[in-house]
Amino acid sequence: MKVLPKIEVCLSPALLYLYDTSDTNVVIIDIFRATSTIVTALDNGAKEVIPTSSIEQCIQVGLCTEDSITAGEREGKVAEGLEYGNSPLEYSKDFVQGKSLVLTTTNGTKLLHMVEDAYQKLIGSFLNLSALCDQLIADNKNVLLACAAWKDKVNLEDSLFAGAVVDRLQKDFEIYCDSGRMCLALYKDALHSPSLIDYLKDSTHYQRLSSYGIVEDMEYATKLDLHPTIPIFQDNKLIPLKKQ
Amino acid sequence: MKVLPKIEVCLSPALLYLYDTSDTNVVIIDIFRATSTIVTALDNGAKEVIPTSSIEQCIQVGLCTEDSITAGEREGKVAEGLEYGNSPLEYSKDFVQGKSLVLTTTNGTKLLHMVEDAYQKLIGSFLNLSALCDQLIADNKNVLLACAAWKDKVNLEDSLFAGAVVDRLQKDFEIYCDSGRMCLALYKDALHSPSLIDYLKDSTHYQRLSSYGIVEDMEYATKLDLHPTIPIFQDNKLIPLKKQ
Repeated sequence: MKVLPKIEVCLSPALLYLYDTSDTNVVIIDIFRATSTIVTALDNGAKEVIPTSSIEQCIQVGLCTEDSITAGEREGKVAEGLEYGNSPLEYSKDFVQGKSLVLTTTNGTKLLHMVEDAYQKLIGSFLNLSALCDQLIADNKNVLLACAAWKDKVNLEDSLFAGAVVDRLQKDFEIYCDSGRMCLALYKDALHSPSLIDYLKDSTHYQRLSSYGIVEDMEYATKLDLHPTIPIFQDNKLIPLKKQ
Repeated sequence: MKVLPKIEVCLSPALLYLYDTSDTNVVIIDIFRATSTIVTALDNGAKEVIPTSSIEQCIQVGLCTEDSITAGEREGKVAEGLEYGNSPLEYSKDFVQGKSLVLTTTNGTKLLHMVEDAYQKLIGSFLNLSALCDQLIADNKNVLLACAAWKDKVNLEDSLFAGAVVDRLQKDFEIYCDSGRMCLALYKDALHSPSLIDYLKDSTHYQRLSSYGIVEDMEYATKLDLHPTIPIFQDNKLIPLKKQ
C-alpha cells in the first residue's frame, strides 16, 4: 500500500511547538489580510515582499531597499511613518510592478520567522488556492497548514481556508490531526452558505475589520484563484515560486 | 436590549492563558474518558472524586482517604500501584456508592488545577449534557468551555462536545469567539452521521484507544443524558452540584 504524506493544521502560533516542521511544506495562512496581500502583490509583478516584524524595522529596511514601498497598518489605518496599508486592493499591476514591498503585519509575518526548518515556507490564500494545492500534491511532502490566527486566538477565516486545502488534498494525503478534520467540517458547513464571505460575517475578524470600514478587502480575499502565484520565503524575502 | 452573557471555547490547555476566567462558569471537558468517568461515578453515588496529578500522588491520597479507590491508566492499562482504570463502566452503583474515587488522568485533571479564578469549575460530558446546559442557562454567567485535548493537541471529541453545548446555549448566550463557531459547525456536521461515535471513528483518539481495545468506553461516553449530575470542583474535590 502506498504510504501517503501527512497533512496537519496548526490553528494558532501558540500551538506551533506541537508540530514537526522538518522536511515539511509549511503553508502560512493569514487570510485577513497579510497572505492575501502578499499573493496579490507578487502576482501583480512586485519583485519581492520583505516581511518585517515592526514598524521601525519596516522603515529601516525601506530606507536601504531600492524601489521600495513601506506598508503596514495598526487599528485599520496606515501606520505612522509608513506609506501604504495592508489592503490587497492597493497593489495593482500599475503600482507594484518591479517594486519591493516592505510589509509589517500584526500576525501574518510572525509565523514566517517562527518556523525554522521547513522543506519550503509557502504563502496560502483563497486567491492562489488551486495553484497552491496542485503544488503541494506535486511535491508529495508532508504538509503543515499554519494559521496566523489573531493574537494567538483561533480564527474562522484562516481555519476555513485550511479546511478548503484539506478538502482538496484528502485523496492524496493522510489527515493526521483532528484540527484538520475540524477545519474540513467547517469548510463543508460553509458550502451551505451563498458565499464564503457570507459565511464569515459572524466571525470576530469580520466584525473588527468592518468597524474600520474594511469590507471590500475581505470580499476580495475570499475570491478563488484570482492570483495563481505561490510566494515562497527564501533569504528573508518572499518571491514567486518557480513551478517545476 | 438585554446584554447576553458570553460563551467561549478554549480548544487546548496551551491556549487557556488567552481567556479571562474570572466570574465565569468554566466547564472542563475530557470526553475520552476522564470527565465521562467522573460524571458516571458521582451520579452512581460516589461520595467524591479527588483528581490527582500523578500516580505517586494518587497512591498517597488513597492511603490517607477512608473508603477510597485509587484509579488511573497509562497506555490503556491500570497504572502500576493503582487499583482500577479510567473506564466509566467500572464505576457502577454497587461498586462506587459512598466511596472516594482518587483519580489520575493524563489530560483531564490538569485543567482543573490550571483554572484559578472561575465562578464555578464544572465537569461536562455527553452523559450530563442537558443538566449542564440547563444549569449554565440558569446561572446566566459567562461560560468558558475548556477542552482537555490530548497533550495540548486539539481533539475532535472534546471540540464536538463543546459544539453541542454551544448549539444549546446559542439563544441565551453571545458566541464570543471563532473557536465556538468552529465547534458548532463541527457538531452540525456530526448530526449528518448515524451517531456521534460513528462520526468520531476517524479521530486520532478513537484510533489510539481502539488499539488498546477500549471501544465500549467510547460508545458509552457519547450517550446523551445517562447521568444528570453536574460535578463541581470545591476544596480540591469534585462533588455533585446541588441545583438551585
